[in-house]
Amino acid sequence: MSFQNPVFIPGPTNIPESLRKSCDMPTIDHRSPLFGGILNAARDGVRQVLKSATAEVFIFPATGTGGWETALTNTLSPGDTVLAARNGMFSHRWIDMCQRLGLTVRVVETPWGQGIPHDQFAEILAADTSHEIKAVLATHNETATGVTSDIAAVRAAMDGSDHPAMLFVDGVSSIGSIDFQFDDWGVDVAVTGSQKGFMLPAGLAIVGFSAKAMAAQPSAQLPRTFFDIRDMADGYAAGAYPYTPAVGLMNGLSHACTMLLSEGLDTVFARHHRIASGVRAAVSAWGLELCAASPDLYSDTVSAIRTPAGFDASRIVSHAATTYGVAFGGGLGEVAGKVFRIGHLGSLTDVMALSGIATAEMCMADHGLDITLGSGVAAAQDVYRAHGAANVQKDAA
Amino acid sequence: MSFQNPVFIPGPTNIPESLRKSCDMPTIDHRSPLFGGILNAARDGVRQVLKSATAEVFIFPATGTGGWETALTNTLSPGDTVLAARNGMFSHRWIDMCQRLGLTVRVVETPWGQGIPHDQFAEILAADTSHEIKAVLATHNETATGVTSDIAAVRAAMDGSDHPAMLFVDGVSSIGSIDFQFDDWGVDVAVTGSQKGFMLPAGLAIVGFSAKAMAAQPSAQLPRTFFDIRDMADGYAAGAYPYTPAVGLMNGLSHACTMLLSEGLDTVFARHHRIASGVRAAVSAWGLELCAASPDLYSDTVSAIRTPAGFDASRIVSHAATTYGVAFGGGLGEVAGKVFRIGHLGSLTDVMALSGIATAEMCMADHGLDITLGSGVAAAQDVYRAHGAANVQKDAA
Amino acid sequence: MSFQNPVFIPGPTNIPESLRKSCDMPTIDHRSPLFGGILNAARDGVRQVLKSATAEVFIFPATGTGGWETALTNTLSPGDTVLAARNGMFSHRWIDMCQRLGLTVRVVETPWGQGIPHDQFAEILAADTSHEIKAVLATHNETATGVTSDIAAVRAAMDGSDHPAMLFVDGVSSIGSIDFQFDDWGVDVAVTGSQKGFMLPAGLAIVGFSAKAMAAQPSAQLPRTFFDIRDMADGYAAGAYPYTPAVGLMNGLSHACTMLLSEGLDTVFARHHRIASGVRAAVSAWGLELCAASPDLYSDTVSAIRTPAGFDASRIVSHAATTYGVAFGGGLGEVAGKVFRIGHLGSLTDVMALSGIATAEMCMADHGLDITLGSGVAAAQDVYRAHGAANVQKDAA
Amino acid sequence: MSFQNPVFIPGPTNIPESLRKSCDMPTIDHRSPLFGGILNAARDGVRQVLKSATAEVFIFPATGTGGWETALTNTLSPGDTVLAARNGMFSHRWIDMCQRLGLTVRVVETPWGQGIPHDQFAEILAADTSHEIKAVLATHNETATGVTSDIAAVRAAMDGSDHPAMLFVDGVSSIGSIDFQFDDWGVDVAVTGSQKGFMLPAGLAIVGFSAKAMAAQPSAQLPRTFFDIRDMADGYAAGAYPYTPAVGLMNGLSHACTMLLSEGLDTVFARHHRIASGVRAAVSAWGLELCAASPDLYSDTVSAIRTPAGFDASRIVSHAATTYGVAFGGGLGEVAGKVFRIGHLGSLTDVMALSGIATAEMCMADHGLDITLGSGVAAAQDVYRAHGAANVQKDAA
Repeated sequence: MSFQNPVFIPGPTNIPESLRKSCDMPTIDHRSPLFGGILNAARDGVRQVLKSATAEVFIFPATGTGGWETALTNTLSPGDTVLAARNGMFSHRWIDMCQRLGLTVRVVETPWGQGIPHDQFAEILAADTSHEIKAVLATHNETATGVTSDIAAVRAAMDGSDHPAMLFVDGVSSIGSIDFQFDDWGVDVAVTGSQKGFMLPAGLAIVGFSAKAMAAQPSAQLPRTFFDIRDMADGYAAGAYPYTPAVGLMNGLSHACTMLLSEGLDTVFARHHRIASGVRAAVSAWGLELCAASPDLYSDTVSAIRTPAGFDASRIVSHAATTYGVAFGGGLGEVAGKVFRIGHLGSLTDVMALSGIATAEMCMADHGLDITLGSGVAAAQDVYRAHGAANVQKDAA
Repeated sequence: MSFQNPVFIPGPTNIPESLRKSCDMPTIDHRSPLFGGILNAARDGVRQVLKSATAEVFIFPATGTGGWETALTNTLSPGDTVLAARNGMFSHRWIDMCQRLGLTVRVVETPWGQGIPHDQFAEILAADTSHEIKAVLATHNETATGVTSDIAAVRAAMDGSDHPAMLFVDGVSSIGSIDFQFDDWGVDVAVTGSQKGFMLPAGLAIVGFSAKAMAAQPSAQLPRTFFDIRDMADGYAAGAYPYTPAVGLMNGLSHACTMLLSEGLDTVFARHHRIASGVRAAVSAWGLELCAASPDLYSDTVSAIRTPAGFDASRIVSHAATTYGVAFGGGLGEVAGKVFRIGHLGSLTDVMALSGIATAEMCMADHGLDITLGSGVAAAQDVYRAHGAANVQKDAA
Repeated sequence: MSFQNPVFIPGPTNIPESLRKSCDMPTIDHRSPLFGGILNAARDGVRQVLKSATAEVFIFPATGTGGWETALTNTLSPGDTVLAARNGMFSHRWIDMCQRLGLTVRVVETPWGQGIPHDQFAEILAADTSHEIKAVLATHNETATGVTSDIAAVRAAMDGSDHPAMLFVDGVSSIGSIDFQFDDWGVDVAVTGSQKGFMLPAGLAIVGFSAKAMAAQPSAQLPRTFFDIRDMADGYAAGAYPYTPAVGLMNGLSHACTMLLSEGLDTVFARHHRIASGVRAAVSAWGLELCAASPDLYSDTVSAIRTPAGFDASRIVSHAATTYGVAFGGGLGEVAGKVFRIGHLGSLTDVMALSGIATAEMCMADHGLDITLGSGVAAAQDVYRAHGAANVQKDAA
Repeated sequence: MSFQNPVFIPGPTNIPESLRKSCDMPTIDHRSPLFGGILNAARDGVRQVLKSATAEVFIFPATGTGGWETALTNTLSPGDTVLAARNGMFSHRWIDMCQRLGLTVRVVETPWGQGIPHDQFAEILAADTSHEIKAVLATHNETATGVTSDIAAVRAAMDGSDHPAMLFVDGVSSIGSIDFQFDDWGVDVAVTGSQKGFMLPAGLAIVGFSAKAMAAQPSAQLPRTFFDIRDMADGYAAGAYPYTPAVGLMNGLSHACTMLLSEGLDTVFARHHRIASGVRAAVSAWGLELCAASPDLYSDTVSAIRTPAGFDASRIVSHAATTYGVAFGGGLGEVAGKVFRIGHLGSLTDVMALSGIATAEMCMADHGLDITLGSGVAAAQDVYRAHGAANVQKDAA
């Protein structure tokens, strides 16, 4: 089929028409002031999306994985200790990267579906009186399980013992979609990519550094070349770049920030919450459960939905793709085969979400699961109609 | 909202990605062989879509209205008589055009919601023994009422009395979406546009002439300049055009034909029928009725849905646009305020159709109509799942 | 070769990147206020480009040829007399259209390469004391010969005898590129298309009517349907359109007007004059002559260049296309084979013009014409450097 | 000015229309077989462009700099020795990267404008009987000086003493534009990016590994995470990717390879040579010299042109941008202010090249350099006409 349904993977998201066009640029000279303007606008915009007044923003032609590497190699030295919870595939991968780089990781194994155990973190940090822990790693939104952790609580856990460690936050599937407060939460390095809240194609690692993280850079001994923020900073100071930038994506990023900031960040977050609430209402109407253990953990960007025991959830994903031309996310790691995921972030409308819900219903029914067709749609419609009926009354007034 | 839902107007349709790109061309020399290749491919493709071996295809930078004018002015003379039924807004407009051009129109007034009364046509034609009627005008699919008429029956009505009139068919909202048989139905002029079954932006009038219609041209006395097929034919003979062509749209048309013919015309028609059946199942589940009077008249490209007496159906259309960002069609002429229309032609999937149905449900519920949320969606899902469940069994086999 | 050189045909022009994107729109509901906004912006913009405070602007999905028909059929009746000079292919075609429509044309045969003979017009109009002449037709810029006529002088010729005829001006290859003063010249109908000064793809006929031309409409008896301005006017009054509009092109037109008006019309005209002057300097350096008989007639949008007697100028055009991938214009009608044309209008830079000139040199040299390679380029460079050297001094100051 | 001249920077190049469209994709599921197809096509295509039957091709969302890092970190260990010549900015930067990674670099300082001194390499390698040198680094085309080195000769220098070092070649500004023979030259790692010979936007590091280089990977001790080819290889084996791929660019790469291979690699190289020869003829006609010391070193992708002593060459670059809207390359490092560069690679025609040459002439004349306008153009025209005149004779035959 040559016709394009919206995608419901948890990133890359659907790309708005205007951002498609912003990215699709003819070649310009990346050593010209024209590029400098694009670069500065993108960096300024990202800083505002991070809700930060002072973060140094670095933008690499890479992905979020490169952002993780940027965070670690520019601040730490071989043998340094970091603290992290493993509660999903992406926190697992970041931990794995630390270990490959020769860092010592204090891993707090956490059930998948749970958030970061900030109480345990508080205990560990309080006990670390010699301050061996140099950084705390926190995955704000676990894309694999649909769990949003409480970063303010992680910060509080650190502050409780006046621990001087830096706080590194993976905000890949949260920044631009779920409230993120770089300054107020005392984040030292925030990592994201272009393909989630910014609604762009993949291809940019976007990283914000606090003054404290910047200060850690000179003594950091991990080798770094491509991801060395010194070269980036030197380039930026001259309105330029240390190597050839992905100009179109950068231009798209600048425009994406303008879109988000024009709509208003809190409006953007409310929109994500509304769409997500509709999806969750549908899940509930189906009699199914989320992977996320409790409502305070529910992610507004992705829902991982547990299918009945004994059923291979990956069949939903492949059937949706093959039969209905719709892309859902599969389960990863520990929850492979146990969940399928509906991504509901970025460029999505209530109406699109309803089509995703309706498709999920058909796929489950096709596989003989005990689903009432239309039940999830009706539950979500109730959520999405909240403003609809009000509009009618307004029109009538 | 900057995010784009599919449209559900009965044309222009959603445009497939590949056709967007085919139309978006840099300038080429329209007097070069490169253009000749595009022109010939488009004309050949259209002829095949018309299911004709011999039709002369003309493509004007205009719209279907210009196609109507092309049909009339190249074949008829002032004072000539034509026969037509008025059963909706578009048949009405074509009749009005005839009258403005100084033709005499034998109008068979027909209830909106009914098809062309071929029995009455048969009587009138049989009585016209002096053959004053030079042409029979037939609107294959009345976009205003969602009624598809039986063109083969119109032809039979003509053949029943061996009447020599020409048969002109407005296939604007049928060609490329609903079976159309130029040769087998003995069509003399078929008229359509780029923005319906061909899934392109508006801007092309596409007209096919039979040998008989071509033969009528030299003696036709209606004035014609822009729409004169002699200039077109002279241009085509030289691989060129009588004035500046809309090259990008023509390139799009060539690619659209390739898409339709590759999928297979009958597969395309079956797809439209399936999607339309889902919409009709939803209407039935809502307890509402179509404007089309009986199932044999139901259009596979557009459904005009009657709302309860006393309710202004246009409120659904404006509310859908304002509150949910979805475009439906309103009622026109006699059925203004009485129906809203869901277009389901061109670049549409089952999944998109479900989102349109779900939106219509919300709009009706928001306005207090007695609609069970999810009911229409569930009915349509049943239709769309016909192949879904089969695929599962195939996978399992 | 898949790589795209600029085109040097006298329209359609190269399309600026931003206008490509403005035209390439997803489908919107053309009955929604969103379309009304685009329509109004386009009409307002065109009126300003016409330098008119009051012209009624109509925009048809057609081409300039349709604009000619619009001008005639909405203002005149069968048998009416019009006055026109035939001095090139496009004035010839407009005259031919008048004759097909049953108008009587007082044709002033004029050598191709000359402008409109306003002195003769003055005599004819003065002699027409019974005011049989209802309209004077004037081709502002003859695209076939590269001749710009003096419309103010035509108006003066009319005013000299207080003749009440209307003044219809074909500004297809002038409006937006060469100064055009709808109000000050007392133009009654101005005709153009999207593909010249507006730098868009072909597909729109753009027509401006004076109050006097509007007043002529009710009594005009020529048949008109597709091009009937009454339907257009009725549509516009409701923020809509009488049939399906070419929304993307209309959006492009709105943006094109913004581009032209932002640059400043007189700056746009000066830019065209500079680029054209460079081309003419090149022609002179080659020892060749223009088709245009004298400098006051030289067109700033297209130069028709006479090749030596006995040489088939069309070989330049085909050779440029085949060997160098460059499109020039050929000779038309009386000057076929005698001239080749370099279009220099719309989206063109000095730098692009130099590449066209250089290509023409190669083509002529390849065919054994006595051309010094680089000579035309050098002459044009001198013209284009006028501001270049000044910029250096400014930098140094 | 909103109108777009071609760029003449030595990459990113102008992007062909079809590749712009290949890159501008709506979001697809990168975990679906659809992506696997794109990935495999891109990898296969690159391997053929490398003229290799067996190279393992890795494609990272990064740039050529990331490709350098990939080459080093996947094959070497801290303290390992590599051999490299420093003869320009890009060889300098690769050496610098080695040093930052803790490698020992035997640097052969070489005058900028000279090629890799393979005779010296031969001596050094012969003397390295303990085989401390693990890899020889060679910059095939020094983009800063416009010098192409003889990689076959470097290989011969290695083979002369049967030295087992690996051969790493930076082909960023050669691969796809200048003959590159991965297999025949015994290259172990080839590095390039998307934005040069592949004519795409920047954003992909493209790397080919020989079997020998693959074998070095398990024992390589340099830390690597983002650029770890093990993760890539694992992903590819499953038709997938270790993180989110830049799908659109990858699709563009697949199409770029098809374009190059369809034209024929040797035809592509001949085209680059012809266009470059024209530029060099122009330089000679201007009485100027290239930075490259001798004709055997002249690069077919970029010419670095020495301006007269005492003149700041960077003024040409800024003046061209500001006054004529044309982008040239400036001098870097040792030759900053001494040269300006004309890039002539990728999507460029003879006709475009002439416009670059003409612009350079104007800029030099504007600055008072002793340049005869049109002289360089004429010299290049002579080169580009070689096939032009022949075509005329062919037509006449």
